[in-house]
Amino acid sequence: MTSQTSNLNLAKLDLPLEAEQEKWLKSTIRDVPDFPKAGIVFKDLTTLLQDATALKFVMESLAHHSKKCKPDVIVGIEARGFILAPAVALALGVGFVPIRKPKKLPCKVERVEYALEYGTDTLEVHADALSHGKRVVIIDDLLATGGTAKAAFDLITKIGGTVAGMGFITELAFLDGRKLLQDAAGKDTDIFSMINF
Amino acid sequence: MTSQTSNLNLAKLDLPLEAEQEKWLKSTIRDVPDFPKAGIVFKDLTTLLQDATALKFVMESLAHHSKKCKPDVIVGIEARGFILAPAVALALGVGFVPIRKPKKLPCKVERVEYALEYGTDTLEVHADALSHGKRVVIIDDLLATGGTAKAAFDLITKIGGTVAGMGFITELAFLDGRKLLQDAAGKDTDIFSMINF
Repeated sequence: MTSQTSNLNLAKLDLPLEAEQEKWLKSTIRDVPDFPKAGIVFKDLTTLLQDATALKFVMESLAHHSKKCKPDVIVGIEARGFILAPAVALALGVGFVPIRKPKKLPCKVERVEYALEYGTDTLEVHADALSHGKRVVIIDDLLATGGTAKAAFDLITKIGGTVAGMGFITELAFLDGRKLLQDAAGKDTDIFSMINF
Repeated sequence: MTSQTSNLNLAKLDLPLEAEQEKWLKSTIRDVPDFPKAGIVFKDLTTLLQDATALKFVMESLAHHSKKCKPDVIVGIEARGFILAPAVALALGVGFVPIRKPKKLPCKVERVEYALEYGTDTLEVHADALSHGKRVVIIDDLLATGGTAKAAFDLITKIGGTVAGMGFITELAFLDGRKLLQDAAGKDTDIFSMINF
């Protein structure tokens, strides 16, 4: 499946996107009302991912902006971050480190528990996944409240990494996740997203 | 992190690997005794993925062999297949479709339940993820008993796709997963893996 892109300049990877780029990229994302519960409109990125042109544009853009952070490693958050982060690592010639849900990683882990709307969730990373001071870019598909990304930031810091950047395809700016992350990480950490809803 | 590769020809992507390639690639994988339970030696691929050279070699090899299957789409199985399949799709200029655990995909799904050693598991794919007759390569990290890959094969067949290939980094040949898949898919489906334990 490939979307209509004849009027677009997809070689230009700067952010913010041009209006035409943004309009097109948003058109590849599907709105799903009442998922995961009534009243929420879910932004379904599977339609973007199955569009070869959109997939390429998103991966190239994430890689382009990650590169400016001079990362030694790209980190992805299970599960949807896994779809994006390894291809970015490959493009930049660095390795990939997964942050996973509990009990998935087999060796010694560091663990962060964080609050959800109801209850808590936990993420883990291998304690030896990074050598001290390595520069990291964390990639995920969506920045919403920032809770998950903040937990990832805390994990990478705990194992001695420096979070140089955090990159997302989409951002729900009205939830203020960016502020949460920037306050935690400081001004030297580049937080970037391609589109805003 | 980068492993010692000065004696290797990593531009040669043919299978089976040369003895030196295989020895090196296996050296990037970590054995974890008694995970997930006593008596099992877990093959931990996170050490391979964080090695930029091994990550590149694995991605290029999977893409090279997938390309021979002339796929229209690359499919990855949650969660570890997500680490590999999208980069293969990107390399081949096609789209990516995820097969996910239950209740993760927001639109109408097809579902396959399959037997595990104890109990059952379920995988889902969006019913509209492929148009009829599209050629698919399914990518996952490990071929063991073949139960998960067979479920993925059944799902893709159910939504009208043709499984042209199934590719893995590692295979546990003594578990006979390859026979299960080949019997289900027929001789026109290419089943390939890079290393065998």
